[in-house]
Formats: sequence, C-alpha cells, structure tokens
Amino acid sequence: MALMNRRIVLASRPHGEPKPEHFRLEESRAPTPKEGEVLLRTRWLSLDPYMRGRMSAAKSYAQPVEIGETMVGQTVSEVVASHHPAYALGDRVLSPAGWQDYFVSDGTGLHRLDPAAGPPSAFLGVLGMPGLTAYAGLLEIGRPQPGETVAVAAAAGPVGSLVGQIARIKGARVVGIAGGPEKCAYLTDVLGFDAALDHRAGDFPDALARACPDGIDVYFENVGGAVFAAVLPLLNDFARVPVCGLVAGYNLSEMPPGPDRAPLLMRAVLTRRLTLRGFIVSDFAGLHGAFLHDVGDWLKAGQVKAREDVVEGLEQAPAAFAGMLRGTNFGKLVVRVA
Amino acid sequence: MALMNRRIVLASRPHGEPKPEHFRLEESRAPTPKEGEVLLRTRWLSLDPYMRGRMSAAKSYAQPVEIGETMVGQTVSEVVASHHPAYALGDRVLSPAGWQDYFVSDGTGLHRLDPAAGPPSAFLGVLGMPGLTAYAGLLEIGRPQPGETVAVAAAAGPVGSLVGQIARIKGARVVGIAGGPEKCAYLTDVLGFDAALDHRAGDFPDALARACPDGIDVYFENVGGAVFAAVLPLLNDFARVPVCGLVAGYNLSEMPPGPDRAPLLMRAVLTRRLTLRGFIVSDFAGLHGAFLHDVGDWLKAGQVKAREDVVEGLEQAPAAFAGMLRGTNFGKLVVRVA
Repeated sequence: MALMNRRIVLASRPHGEPKPEHFRLEESRAPTPKEGEVLLRTRWLSLDPYMRGRMSAAKSYAQPVEIGETMVGQTVSEVVASHHPAYALGDRVLSPAGWQDYFVSDGTGLHRLDPAAGPPSAFLGVLGMPGLTAYAGLLEIGRPQPGETVAVAAAAGPVGSLVGQIARIKGARVVGIAGGPEKCAYLTDVLGFDAALDHRAGDFPDALARACPDGIDVYFENVGGAVFAAVLPLLNDFARVPVCGLVAGYNLSEMPPGPDRAPLLMRAVLTRRLTLRGFIVSDFAGLHGAFLHDVGDWLKAGQVKAREDVVEGLEQAPAAFAGMLRGTNFGKLVVRVA
Repeated sequence: MALMNRRIVLASRPHGEPKPEHFRLEESRAPTPKEGEVLLRTRWLSLDPYMRGRMSAAKSYAQPVEIGETMVGQTVSEVVASHHPAYALGDRVLSPAGWQDYFVSDGTGLHRLDPAAGPPSAFLGVLGMPGLTAYAGLLEIGRPQPGETVAVAAAAGPVGSLVGQIARIKGARVVGIAGGPEKCAYLTDVLGFDAALDHRAGDFPDALARACPDGIDVYFENVGGAVFAAVLPLLNDFARVPVCGLVAGYNLSEMPPGPDRAPLLMRAVLTRRLTLRGFIVSDFAGLHGAFLHDVGDWLKAGQVKAREDVVEGLEQAPAAFAGMLRGTNFGKLVVRVA
C-alpha cells in the first residue's frame, strides 16, 4: 500500500504578514527509505517565530526556504520503517522533518527521545529549542543577579515564560510583558511573576515604568518594536539585553518611518554602558546537557511550569503560524499531526 | 602679589555645534590654598570629545556643567604653593582642574606624574585617559584575535590611533577610517595600518567594503552616524562593537529624519549575533596598572607612536574644541596653558 504524504510548501514570499496564499498543501507518495535510512511519521510539529525569517529571501543566520520547498520545522516523529541499525520501529525522535506527514532520514539531525523525561511534545518546548533559548540567553548573556529586575516580553510564550521562571529561581524580580489580561493573570497567578503588563493597554509605557521602580537590569528581547521603545528608557547602567527575537519586526517589509531612532539607541548604549548581544540557540549547543539537567529538575520539582497551545491537524499549521506572529496563541504552539 | 586666574565658563548650552558665544572667559583672583591644600598652575589642558556631553543638560554618565561653571577637563599642573604634606613645590600632577589657570585642591583626584615615564602632555593622551580608553575597550570588549579584521574610526585621533596600533600588535588586520588624505597617509605610512579610508570620499562605503574583503570582526565605535552606517553591513557573525563615543551625534539637537534605522540595527544584532557594548574609561579603572605597563613598554620599543596637536593659550580652547568636533585636529588635542 502506498503511503500518501501531505506537505506544506512555501508558495510565495510574504511581504508583511503571512497569509494562506503564501502556503500550499501538496500530496504525493511518501518516500521509501533505502539501506541506512528510516521512515519517520510526524506526530507533533513545532511552530516557532524564527520560521517567518526563513520565508524571506533576506540573508539571515540560516538559508531561506526556497519557493516550492517544504516549510522547515522540528517535529516529534515515530520510526515507522527502519533500514538503519540505530533505530527500531516505534522509536520516538526529534527530527528536522518540517511541515509534513512523512520524512526519510539517514539519521542526520535526529535525537532519540527518552519517554521517561517528559511528554513527547515537551521536547519541542520547555525541554527543547525554546527552552534552551531561554536558558542560555538568560544565563549566559543576561546573567541576572539576586535582587535585580528582569523584564521579558512575549512572557506567556514558551521562551519568555521560561526566562521569567528561571530569573525568579535565580533571585531576580521578574516583570512580564504580554498581550491581554488573560495572559497577564497567568504570569502572576500561575507562574509567580512579580508583575505583568499588557502591552496593548493605552498607558503601557507608564505602567511599565511604575512596575520597574528600580529600573531594568536585564531585558530579554524577543519582540522589538513598541515594547523595546518602552523598555529602553528604563534600562539601568550596565543593563544586559540578550537579543533573541524581534517578532514585531518579522513582518516588516521596509524600514518604518522616521525619526531615525538608531542614534538614540546608540547613545543609550554608550551613556548607560548597555550590552546588546544577539544569539541563536545553536550558538549554545554546548549547554544542552546542563539545560536538560537543570530544567528537567525544575519541572519535576514544580518550580517551572509549561503550557501548550495544541492545534489539531497539519492543514491548520499556516493559520496557526500567522496567528502566533500576531500573538493569538497562548503557550507553546504545537500541531498534532497524527 | 595677587595672582589672577583666567577661567573659561559655560555661558549657555549649545543646540548643535558649540560656538564662541557658548563660552565666556572670566578673570578673578586666584584662590588661596588653606591648610591641607595645594595651589596648582595649569601647564597643559586636555580637550576631549566627551566634554560636548557635559555642555548639555541631558542625563549622561556624568553631571552636566552648570551655566557659569568652569568647563571640566583634565590638566597637567604644577604645584606652585603647598600646605599639603604629600606635595612639594614643582611637583607635576594630573588634575581635574578644568579650563583655567589655577586650581586649589585638597589632593582629591590628583595623580603624581613620573617625569621619567614620558613627556608631561603624554599623560593626557597615549598614557592617559584616551590611552586607557583604547586599551580597555579594544582588549576587554573587542578582544581581537590574530587574523581578524579590526576597523576603527577617528583613527588618527588619540583613541583610534592607539586602538589600531594595539590591534596590530595583537595580530589583527587593521583598517582605519579618518577624515582626509593626510590623516590616511599617516595611518598607513607612519602607524603601519593595513588600510586607511577617507570617510569624506564619495565612494566611502564601497571603498570600505573593498578594504575589508573578509568583513569586520571588531569595530571600535567612537563616531557613529554615516561611518557606522557603512560599517554595519560589513560586520561578521559574532562581531564585537565597543561603543566608546559618538562624535557625529554629539551636536545633534533632535533625532534625525527617517526612515527609522533602529529596527535594522536590532535585526543585524540578532541575525549576526553582534555584541554592542558601551563603556566609559572609568569602568576599567582596574586596568590602569596593566595599561601603563603595556603601553609604556610599546612606546619605548617604538611599537606605538603618539601624535599631539598643540594649541597655544587657554583663550584658544573654545575654538580648538569646536574644531575637534568637526575633525580639524590631527593628533591628541592639548592646550599649552603656561
């Protein structure tokens, strides 16, 4: 019986917000594994903001997805056929399979999952790439000290929520920024943040200043735009800004109108001796062991909580992805593919 | 006989470029030292770009000079009367005397100079605050590795010229940016820079790109503006940008017109994992001993050269200072006061 593979390819490059017409669902026969290969069935697909960057032709830290190619992405997959000595039927692996049902691999980039360590989808979130992003960026670049104030945007998301929880464990005061009262209540009531601000509220810059009476020592930047503009005046001398993402700018197709705030930003860097440092998670691959150990322990101890936003069915991925860039998800966005 | 003291005070705050009317020369009797104090005669006054910041009321890392107050500045001064046990007539000291002939001190902020270590004015330049600025910013933040490309602007100035020479000693390829062919020739022919570019030349961005075929790994930022705009696209992954000064922006009285380049800058920080870090020399006071040792040795060995631009007479200081902000000086700008 021939297996049919559904895959979602990049149909055209968006200028601005991704829309349904930028994606195309294609069906074809699933590939057949050769000697030394495995056939993987996608169970869970991770949707993450970095994917917006891959849809553009612009130079970034990674190659863009070509038109007609399958959208990239990490999956939790199951081995459904194996001609590879290291993998057996039923093995669960983390895989770079992308937005599709089936994927043939020679083992490159596969990581076997330990079913005892957590539910499979956690390896796409708190125990996966978003988790390591939070852990490494906060601890290696942000370096929060006890009593310092740490601010984090997109704080109800998979990266931001872990940033805030780790900062609390390290003794910092944590101020979360999120979209809407429901997410803000979650931050303070469930995750124990010291304060949470709705960036959509009309008085957001003033409210943020009131919530940070001692200024901000670490700002974990994963949003950019108006949130960063509100944070910048509050940054203390020697503040550290790990720059992890700029979701607010991912859909920009040209530079915004003036005035030019770049000189103001550079002047703040100079006079307040700020450190701005960009990173991507693969820069800190060497921390993976320490990360799994620490965050695994915190999860088991209940010191860290993780929330998922589950979407049912591969065909829902484009709409869910576009919504995430607008902030409509609540928790780590994953697609249950099968 | 009553000594008369000439001092130059801040008459009004400039919006934009400082002009003669922003300064006023005042004469009054020199103060008399009490028990525990010394009277200092200014021999050399240092003129430095940071002074432009002190003329503005805007918050910075230091208090602004108030209207009617003596302009701040470091001097090499001579003890001409002493009621302080630690200082004798004729001693030479580094002093925060400011733009004036005489200054009374209880010893706070004075540093005795070793006449054998170099000519007195060198302690305002290569062996002084500009020298430590170059040494600390390059080695602690820039961290050039052998074979890397280091670019430095205002490269014929006291900070930039030392940055480039230390980078060469550390095995880096050094590209200097300066204003005019005379300064560029000095960089390559006298200081041994690998290349020098005139930022006033029409094809400067292209010429800079040609001079940096392997990109830029360290950009020592002390200029900002159009030079930084030309450097930004050339910065390699993991490039380090010590932000030491922004002379091009010191005279800005409002934000420049758009488009807003701040999001572009942040995107470069993210995708190329840049580190931008501001600093001022006092952040690295702990390196002063190592600095004097290393740069002193390099000077004696001829591996480091220092050039001075000497202005005669305190009354020339305002015009010389304004000229420095436009780049008319060539070498460390010092005023021979007496």
